[in-house]
Amino acid sequence: MIKAALSIFLVLAAMSSAFGKYIPKSGKRVPQTLSRGWGDQLIWAQTYEEGLYWSRSRGKPLMVLFHLENCPHSQALKKVIADDYNIQKMLDEDFIVLNLMYETTDKHLSPDGEYVPRILFVDPSMTVRADLNGPYSNRLYTYETGDLKHLKRNMETAKKLLKTEL
Amino acid sequence: MIKAALSIFLVLAAMSSAFGKYIPKSGKRVPQTLSRGWGDQLIWAQTYEEGLYWSRSRGKPLMVLFHLENCPHSQALKKVIADDYNIQKMLDEDFIVLNLMYETTDKHLSPDGEYVPRILFVDPSMTVRADLNGPYSNRLYTYETGDLKHLKRNMETAKKLLKTEL
Repeated sequence: MIKAALSIFLVLAAMSSAFGKYIPKSGKRVPQTLSRGWGDQLIWAQTYEEGLYWSRSRGKPLMVLFHLENCPHSQALKKVIADDYNIQKMLDEDFIVLNLMYETTDKHLSPDGEYVPRILFVDPSMTVRADLNGPYSNRLYTYETGDLKHLKRNMETAKKLLKTEL
Repeated sequence: MIKAALSIFLVLAAMSSAFGKYIPKSGKRVPQTLSRGWGDQLIWAQTYEEGLYWSRSRGKPLMVLFHLENCPHSQALKKVIADDYNIQKMLDEDFIVLNLMYETTDKHLSPDGEYVPRILFVDPSMTVRADLNGPYSNRLYTYETGDLKHLKRNMETAKKLLKTEL
């Protein structure tokens, strides 16, 4: 009951604080999130430079997800990754995460071309881990919804090799 | 009344859909927004590459805001810019917007050094408008809370020159 009352209060507070502020002609927009649906509880890097900086300074591998909002394969993969408790926990605790809808200028992030969905791992030494690929030989860094086990194995390798190398 | 009921329903729906999902040990986090408080109603580019692409393809100048969350000058400037109806409207309708907490690799975005807050305009031709600066000779691209008129004048110039040049 207290929770419900608090919720109503928060909603009303949000409505009143918006008074007098700019609202687009097309109507009020929901603010974009950095997660873009890939895991609202994770702390996302905004840019590749930021991701590399965090990866180096915290000694954690960086996982870069390339995707597009109008690509059904990206959307399907996003749903299973966002809903997988273990992947989310591992990403939160052991990885730096970045999701991008536009390519960077670093060609190392597209070893076999630019396509989505595409997942690349980068070592804290700033080496792109081209050796960690998915199960498809035509597009090495793509994953489908049934490939989460494969993805988890790659995540484990990204973590383990790091420790061995240091 | 209907609005209030709808709000409660949405809050409850949001609570129930979160059930079973990953929650960090430190507690549930508020998802990060791309606006980071500089204008929740604006459509923000995520990266410089994305901002340049939108700027070119839509023929609108790009405004890049460099800031830091632990910098009181950035925070103060953010508040007055987010609350200024006319600036928000102009940014929404006539500009591509990008706010960054990490530097890019493009040195043209730091003509007189890397500091925050710092505002640079980029023409759709991808030319950084080093001629559009604030009122301070020691840090050419910074603005303080009292400088919104100066900033608006620069925004108008960024718009006008573009039309003249094309």
